[in-house]
Amino acid sequence: MANQDAAGGESYDYDLLVIGSGPSGQKAAIQAAKLRKRVAIVEAGHTLGGVCTNTGTIPSKSFREAVLYLTGFRERSIYGSAYRVKSRITMDDLTYRISNIVRHENQVIEDQLSRNRIEILHGIATFLDPHTVAIQGTNFSAKKTARYIVIAVGTRPFHPPGFEVDGEKILDSDDVLSLKELPRNITVVGGGIIGMEYASWFSVLGVKVTLVEARHQLLSFVDREIVEALKYQLRGLGMTLRVGEEVSRVTRRDDGQVETYLKSGKKIVSEAVLISAGRQGATDTMNLSAVGINPDKYGRIKVDEHFQSEVSNIYAVGDVVGFPALASTGMQQGRLASSHAFGIEDESRDIPLPFGVWTIPEISLVGETEDSLTEKAVPYETGVARYREIARGLLIGDENGMLKILFHRETHQLLGIHAMGEGAVEILHLGQAVLHLKGGLEYLTSGVFNYPTLTECYKVAALDGLNKIRE
Amino acid sequence: MANQDAAGGESYDYDLLVIGSGPSGQKAAIQAAKLRKRVAIVEAGHTLGGVCTNTGTIPSKSFREAVLYLTGFRERSIYGSAYRVKSRITMDDLTYRISNIVRHENQVIEDQLSRNRIEILHGIATFLDPHTVAIQGTNFSAKKTARYIVIAVGTRPFHPPGFEVDGEKILDSDDVLSLKELPRNITVVGGGIIGMEYASWFSVLGVKVTLVEARHQLLSFVDREIVEALKYQLRGLGMTLRVGEEVSRVTRRDDGQVETYLKSGKKIVSEAVLISAGRQGATDTMNLSAVGINPDKYGRIKVDEHFQSEVSNIYAVGDVVGFPALASTGMQQGRLASSHAFGIEDESRDIPLPFGVWTIPEISLVGETEDSLTEKAVPYETGVARYREIARGLLIGDENGMLKILFHRETHQLLGIHAMGEGAVEILHLGQAVLHLKGGLEYLTSGVFNYPTLTECYKVAALDGLNKIRE
Repeated sequence: MANQDAAGGESYDYDLLVIGSGPSGQKAAIQAAKLRKRVAIVEAGHTLGGVCTNTGTIPSKSFREAVLYLTGFRERSIYGSAYRVKSRITMDDLTYRISNIVRHENQVIEDQLSRNRIEILHGIATFLDPHTVAIQGTNFSAKKTARYIVIAVGTRPFHPPGFEVDGEKILDSDDVLSLKELPRNITVVGGGIIGMEYASWFSVLGVKVTLVEARHQLLSFVDREIVEALKYQLRGLGMTLRVGEEVSRVTRRDDGQVETYLKSGKKIVSEAVLISAGRQGATDTMNLSAVGINPDKYGRIKVDEHFQSEVSNIYAVGDVVGFPALASTGMQQGRLASSHAFGIEDESRDIPLPFGVWTIPEISLVGETEDSLTEKAVPYETGVARYREIARGLLIGDENGMLKILFHRETHQLLGIHAMGEGAVEILHLGQAVLHLKGGLEYLTSGVFNYPTLTECYKVAALDGLNKIRE
Repeated sequence: MANQDAAGGESYDYDLLVIGSGPSGQKAAIQAAKLRKRVAIVEAGHTLGGVCTNTGTIPSKSFREAVLYLTGFRERSIYGSAYRVKSRITMDDLTYRISNIVRHENQVIEDQLSRNRIEILHGIATFLDPHTVAIQGTNFSAKKTARYIVIAVGTRPFHPPGFEVDGEKILDSDDVLSLKELPRNITVVGGGIIGMEYASWFSVLGVKVTLVEARHQLLSFVDREIVEALKYQLRGLGMTLRVGEEVSRVTRRDDGQVETYLKSGKKIVSEAVLISAGRQGATDTMNLSAVGINPDKYGRIKVDEHFQSEVSNIYAVGDVVGFPALASTGMQQGRLASSHAFGIEDESRDIPLPFGVWTIPEISLVGETEDSLTEKAVPYETGVARYREIARGLLIGDENGMLKILFHRETHQLLGIHAMGEGAVEILHLGQAVLHLKGGLEYLTSGVFNYPTLTECYKVAALDGLNKIRE
């Protein structure tokens, strides 16, 4: 079966071949399928869903929910530790439900792809030419051609030279959930999103955490005030932050302890080390040189704003193209790539992208930061609400949560939303909608919101902002 | 000190006198204060905040949070009861934090009123004429005049004749939180918002609940599909629903049990009875006849769309004017009344009002229902998402949550949002904004949302809806 290419008259097995079945690959495939294109996904793993479903987002967020529940963290300020759900929490308690959730998600993805008549080819894909891919599975091999190809192969943990990840004491973010026991202390090397998330979760569990980050800023895309508040809270949980410090080597001692040496001469001894030094594109087995695509030293593929690679019929989306490497953004990239390939206008590009960091406390943001607005010389003002000022904040016992809105001091339009605390990643979406749909501060001050909810923060922040610009 | 009335040249002590310091009174006063008017609030109770803060919304929602946490309800589907926080939950456990939260809220309100330079007069207010009120406090009495008066006195539980509420075994919603022990079973008479909320909370606690409601529909303002799903879930918790049944009498037996007789001949024996047969306006001591205002038999004051009573300088807002009697709506009413009195245009009236019902599971809605749209012959379609289909739903273990959006099948504009489940009352606000700001289905299908969040339901529901109208 071959498809007639309207443009060149060539024939291909598929209109679109997607390599990788993570969130970005799924959405690329589904978008094309909805345009009634013939689509297949090549998946190298045993199950669908990629890193997101099988080792990354879903398992780690399941772990996080277990941490919150079993430690009673959400209620600590209210009940103290007397009501702690479990006094001695084990790794088994924390990972107990992961496999169920992962299996369920695998099934949801399989159903969704099959409903959209997307073919699944299990095997490893290597390029033969820009339109042809060889697929090698366990009991299956084939050559398949496609008019367009979307690379959505994702990433795997990057192991810096000299760091011997052994999966037992020196771990990467794919290993960490298979720890047999919770360590008493852990050193986290790398303060990116993943490193910060695990570091905060372990701290909440009472594990003594030392975080080492070479850059001078943690989470540089996040509002400075929020990062500082986060650091303050993490220190309050007993975390030691070594920011602007480089690790020279990590070695395992005979007694099982691990020594982490910093270039500044410091030494950290801990029961385990999590190396979270970024991730690298899983592109090395793809024979990309055959088509003239040259990934960078982290295996990442360079793309333009349409997610088109240097080869015009080959797109790349998701984590393999680098920052922000979130499931949510990957999904949009997949969709935009497919839309571009098949000549469809996609206006979703105009809606500002939210970012969510699932630390405890969680962080979320959309739009501009104070730094970016200052740089652009936009006359903005801020409005701030703290959870402890609103009824819902008291009810859930989150004394540290906050919402900050940035708005234009003349037009009153929202420019950015920054939130930290319980529910931040969820309530951000109201601000995102008001920002994009141009409701302005007036929507927030006029709207009636359910009481008592965290949404009240928007009203309080908007009123705070209006007060500041009253002249 | 007297204020010169610009219109008539008369002089009053205040531009606005508000009677009652609950949410609606607070907002009426603050709105006037922001217009630089001279404002006072008369409060009969010892503390500020009215029923909302002291006996109603805040204490009951604090109780609800304690129920959720201590029973481990949110995690039941994941952990079973093995991890239950407390095996034998007492009333003390459940009410432990209420007084702290109430005290904190009292303080927040006091600060806010004082920042706005609103005078507080402690005492009971009775009308002498449309502009004059006598205030009788413990060590204080005064006559005060005001150009405008806002009645925001709220309500107290209504005790139907023949039901002897004793505060011990036969309770109203103000007594219920002072129960000394959790009863093994309870009969709840009245299936309005308050009755349904308590009935669901007791059921989650394992108390055997029988709910009796005279009307044939529970929560008639809520989407029928959602009410049916709620009933199904409440029955699953062991609740018995007697809908369309009237209670003839309730009597306490010598052995302490209470017998509830239904007109249909049924008899229900339980350790306690909660009478939740509506609330009545706390207007009886106000001498309203002196100004020609005649409350109805439930003590409620009739108002027009500006919350103006039959006497043009006297407004009434909040629970004392009847349905929906929510803190959120009361706040808006207070604000609208003040704006109207002082001739300010207030556009907040155009933003659709959300409703929140804090049953377990919680319910929220905004805009039209299927029934109202059918009656108006608006060509609508629905889009539905279930929590169990999305990653966040699995992570929090809420298998029954759902979001239903109603939209115009030609314009794709949202017409109504109906949600049930964990977080429903919070995530509703995104739909409210998209509805009011006219983002339409396209905003929901195009927007990138944090992953994994409940907000994903909006995208799934919008896609479901679009599929239904594909012709």
